[in-house]
Amino acid sequence: MAAVWMAQLNIKTLVIETKSCRTLAGHADGLESRTLEILDSFGLAGIIWKESNRTMEVCLWHRDPRGVLCRDSVSPNCNPGLSRFQEVTLGQGRIEERLLEFIDKSPNVQIKWETSPQQLLIHQDLVDLHREYAVELRLDTDSVVRTKYLIGCDGAHSWVRKQVGLSLEGNTASNGDWGVLDCIPTTDFPDIRKRCIIKAPAGNVMVIPREDNLVRFYVQLSARCATRFRRDHQPSVLLSILGDALKPYYLVTSHVEWCTIYTVGQRLCTDFSVQDRIFLSGDAVHTHSPKAGQGMNVSMQDTYNLGWKLASVLKSVATPAILQTYQEERLPVAERLIRFDHRMCLGVCSGPDDDLAEREKLADFKDKATGLEGTLSEENTTASGLSVTYPPNLLVTGTRNSHSRPDKNGVLYCSKPHLAENIVVGRRLPDVLVLCQSDSQPWHLQERLPSTGQWHLLVFGGDISQALQMQRVEALARQLTRRNSILAPRCMSGATTAVGSVAVYLIHSASRFDVQLMSLPPIFRPYDDRRGREYRRVFADNKGFAPGCGMAYSLYGIAPEGCVVLLRPDQHCSLVVSLEDSDILERFFSLFVPV
Amino acid sequence: MAAVWMAQLNIKTLVIETKSCRTLAGHADGLESRTLEILDSFGLAGIIWKESNRTMEVCLWHRDPRGVLCRDSVSPNCNPGLSRFQEVTLGQGRIEERLLEFIDKSPNVQIKWETSPQQLLIHQDLVDLHREYAVELRLDTDSVVRTKYLIGCDGAHSWVRKQVGLSLEGNTASNGDWGVLDCIPTTDFPDIRKRCIIKAPAGNVMVIPREDNLVRFYVQLSARCATRFRRDHQPSVLLSILGDALKPYYLVTSHVEWCTIYTVGQRLCTDFSVQDRIFLSGDAVHTHSPKAGQGMNVSMQDTYNLGWKLASVLKSVATPAILQTYQEERLPVAERLIRFDHRMCLGVCSGPDDDLAEREKLADFKDKATGLEGTLSEENTTASGLSVTYPPNLLVTGTRNSHSRPDKNGVLYCSKPHLAENIVVGRRLPDVLVLCQSDSQPWHLQERLPSTGQWHLLVFGGDISQALQMQRVEALARQLTRRNSILAPRCMSGATTAVGSVAVYLIHSASRFDVQLMSLPPIFRPYDDRRGREYRRVFADNKGFAPGCGMAYSLYGIAPEGCVVLLRPDQHCSLVVSLEDSDILERFFSLFVPV
Repeated sequence: MAAVWMAQLNIKTLVIETKSCRTLAGHADGLESRTLEILDSFGLAGIIWKESNRTMEVCLWHRDPRGVLCRDSVSPNCNPGLSRFQEVTLGQGRIEERLLEFIDKSPNVQIKWETSPQQLLIHQDLVDLHREYAVELRLDTDSVVRTKYLIGCDGAHSWVRKQVGLSLEGNTASNGDWGVLDCIPTTDFPDIRKRCIIKAPAGNVMVIPREDNLVRFYVQLSARCATRFRRDHQPSVLLSILGDALKPYYLVTSHVEWCTIYTVGQRLCTDFSVQDRIFLSGDAVHTHSPKAGQGMNVSMQDTYNLGWKLASVLKSVATPAILQTYQEERLPVAERLIRFDHRMCLGVCSGPDDDLAEREKLADFKDKATGLEGTLSEENTTASGLSVTYPPNLLVTGTRNSHSRPDKNGVLYCSKPHLAENIVVGRRLPDVLVLCQSDSQPWHLQERLPSTGQWHLLVFGGDISQALQMQRVEALARQLTRRNSILAPRCMSGATTAVGSVAVYLIHSASRFDVQLMSLPPIFRPYDDRRGREYRRVFADNKGFAPGCGMAYSLYGIAPEGCVVLLRPDQHCSLVVSLEDSDILERFFSLFVPV
Repeated sequence: MAAVWMAQLNIKTLVIETKSCRTLAGHADGLESRTLEILDSFGLAGIIWKESNRTMEVCLWHRDPRGVLCRDSVSPNCNPGLSRFQEVTLGQGRIEERLLEFIDKSPNVQIKWETSPQQLLIHQDLVDLHREYAVELRLDTDSVVRTKYLIGCDGAHSWVRKQVGLSLEGNTASNGDWGVLDCIPTTDFPDIRKRCIIKAPAGNVMVIPREDNLVRFYVQLSARCATRFRRDHQPSVLLSILGDALKPYYLVTSHVEWCTIYTVGQRLCTDFSVQDRIFLSGDAVHTHSPKAGQGMNVSMQDTYNLGWKLASVLKSVATPAILQTYQEERLPVAERLIRFDHRMCLGVCSGPDDDLAEREKLADFKDKATGLEGTLSEENTTASGLSVTYPPNLLVTGTRNSHSRPDKNGVLYCSKPHLAENIVVGRRLPDVLVLCQSDSQPWHLQERLPSTGQWHLLVFGGDISQALQMQRVEALARQLTRRNSILAPRCMSGATTAVGSVAVYLIHSASRFDVQLMSLPPIFRPYDDRRGREYRRVFADNKGFAPGCGMAYSLYGIAPEGCVVLLRPDQHCSLVVSLEDSDILERFFSLFVPV
């Protein structure tokens, strides 16, 4: 994901990989809806969505005291209102393949396969000079690489992390050993194409249906079985437990794709960066069980958070101070992930014969706070990445009061959340359907916010067929383009998508038939000599052509007087202010834009 | 499209093309929804849909007697209920590119670029022996090609058509000359991203917005302008008329991509084949104006109709007698197209100053039968390819009566249309949303009917949680798999998709929670040693996970007792019978399956 950003933004990048090729089988396989939104912002979601398996329902099973395997419940495993995507499963290798295709198209990103780093050095005399190549890396090919920034995406045993003297803290093995098996099963178990959690004395089992008839099984192992599997690495060990757990249903397979064993543990490194020159992400800073299918997602979201910030500094459109927000934003997400995984493991690992009180607590599916079903439901809402909310920092305003002086950390507390009750400052913008003013085509607003390194300024102008509202929009446009403003050159970069520029959108609530695109301020219809006019910056919150159009204002909770919403290049909201607050926008950018 | 079929079905094929590469600019640009459904059945619609321009609205403009340019109306240019796709525009070259990518993946289809045929010969002694290579073609490379079948997809000036002594009949130039201009315009004309018809004394104009800010303009030319354009081929001639027609709006362009001139004429060849060995398709048998954006569509639909039939004969799963249905089915479509285009031209070509009676008739947009808006509306319904209905023939049953003896042409008149009131025998199956029994995933039923050369037998089993309905479904399954039946080996080809086999689906109306996939007859859950079980043959007409699910029975007009619907490999309905009518199915196949 870090390399995808760099390929997208034309940053000269070297990827150093010890393996000889991409992952071929196994490893992670769950994609949350937010990850798909992110992939889509690079144009990558379509094919991944099509190839993957959609897991619509989750079933809980247990073996009752008489030994009968019973289905306790079937619940939805998705929450259609929260995203235009939902959780899917697809082998990590298939996802890597798509990312590699994307990266391969860029002349700026090079991958060195089968290469290991040997020595890492920060030149302390250069470390505060961000234009200098302060990081030095010696490779096993004996070549030396000098770089401005290094990102350690090198997993739980991160070489980079060890070099900088950091470590993962936490418990290593609290919930026993689990086997993982990817195979094409032949079975009469009725829920084989649904996600299942099966509590059985033979060992608890999780069923994760995958692409192309594959199924992943997680199998809880006794100490004896774990030892046997570690010694022989025979899938038969896992298949035998699985067979017992599923009885009276049969399960056989003639195609085992992959199997492994893992020990559950939640561990965390609380330093995500060293001097804002070396960064750690993914398993290098947080490890946990695979049970909630979160790992690949949180890891990609780590570098999705970091990539545009690095590019903005490298292209001198932001000061290096913004790099500190990486840890400020992603460490709390990792902490939450660790806590969530702990609850998930407790829920899944407890047996059907555990003490009654515990069992009842877990079986109480109405108790969303503690029960397993509550945890599963949380996975599809808050843990899916959709509700990740970054705290106030240099790139996210706070809402404590409305004056516009920054605190000692450069944080502005000036957002006016009441202007858009369902847009949360610090959180990614939810999707709505809007109609394009120029051609009436319905669009998911998110589709119009690609990852280009640009900021997105959404002007909710209200009913601009009313003279007063139109005057307010025109006045804002004048302010955004006035001389000596920081914003003016950024908002007037035309139809191009330069890193650090600001794309300005107008989403009005007038009838589209009462609005003429060409009568609007030019900032909303930028022009480019080569490609012509940008026709997709003005949208009407009108009904038409697709169910769900015409509800943007009500879904966002925006009043008729409208508001202005500033989104970062990663679609997270930086601030919500009124149409008259261009000075706050100006102040916000002034805190991190180089003079 | 013919080559796409052959690539898909592994038929050894040679494409002979006089040009040196695909179309680079200009030519056709309209894709109707049925064409997108067809492309999707090969997995090709996604990327084409994404790259293309969706034309949501059509605007009619005219210059009033005082010389003021006025918009008469804005109407929808799509009909969302009829297809999951809608009309889009994309340059023909971009579509060819995708088809070529598809063809290139097949080792069986070879393209000879820059090659012209010189001589064509049918060996009459072999013509009735369909296993023989009866057609001989000499190429300009002096090589000789022997082939079983030849398809002339070689346009209005078809060399193949001339060789076999056929010609296009009809009027060549009834509605004057039109210029065509593809450019990226800069303009303040408010409807530049909508489809427009502008009636102006300077010359009538049609506006067709295209991908990537391109716009296609059709400009009606005076005899003098046509002569000038033919001589100089300067886009300025067209731009000047366009500028006058659009006044007071301005229009300039710095990027002209393509321009040409054409003369309207509707012409038809009433022979689509010679001895069922040589076939003609597309412009080789029907030419007309480009005004309704039909040409590329009807042409691709011609060979979409022919391809699977040829493959079925070549693979000996159908007798050559089925080849006569190509002309029986496609000639009426061409005739209808010609009549439709004539009305379209009348509507578009008449001037705003034509005699008042004519003008009023055209302006009477409520008069759907004759007015221009009626014609436009027809384009988005009956002319879009969605309602093409093939007449009773060897592959489409009639409904005259219910006995099952074929007439002298081998046509069965035994369908029972009252069992599925909204499924029209001879027409492509409309789409519905259903839930997959195995995993509850919502599917467009059409997505489960890919173009593999397989037939699709849809068993609408009703509420199979009721014992009686379940018994009827089980009895049908027994009949379909009984010994000595023609159907049995075809229905029991497992999860593979051999040409001429029959994929059997069950779409029931019971709650999916009351049905166990593994308790259903094996014919609905075929198994393949390599790929495992086929889990996507049983669907529930239940609500859930997507708006619009749970309406299949009501949308199709199927009563609780259910019915059986047989679809050909091109998704057109062959017959509708009851669950007890397996003998009719048997009889139907016996008429064209080789003994």
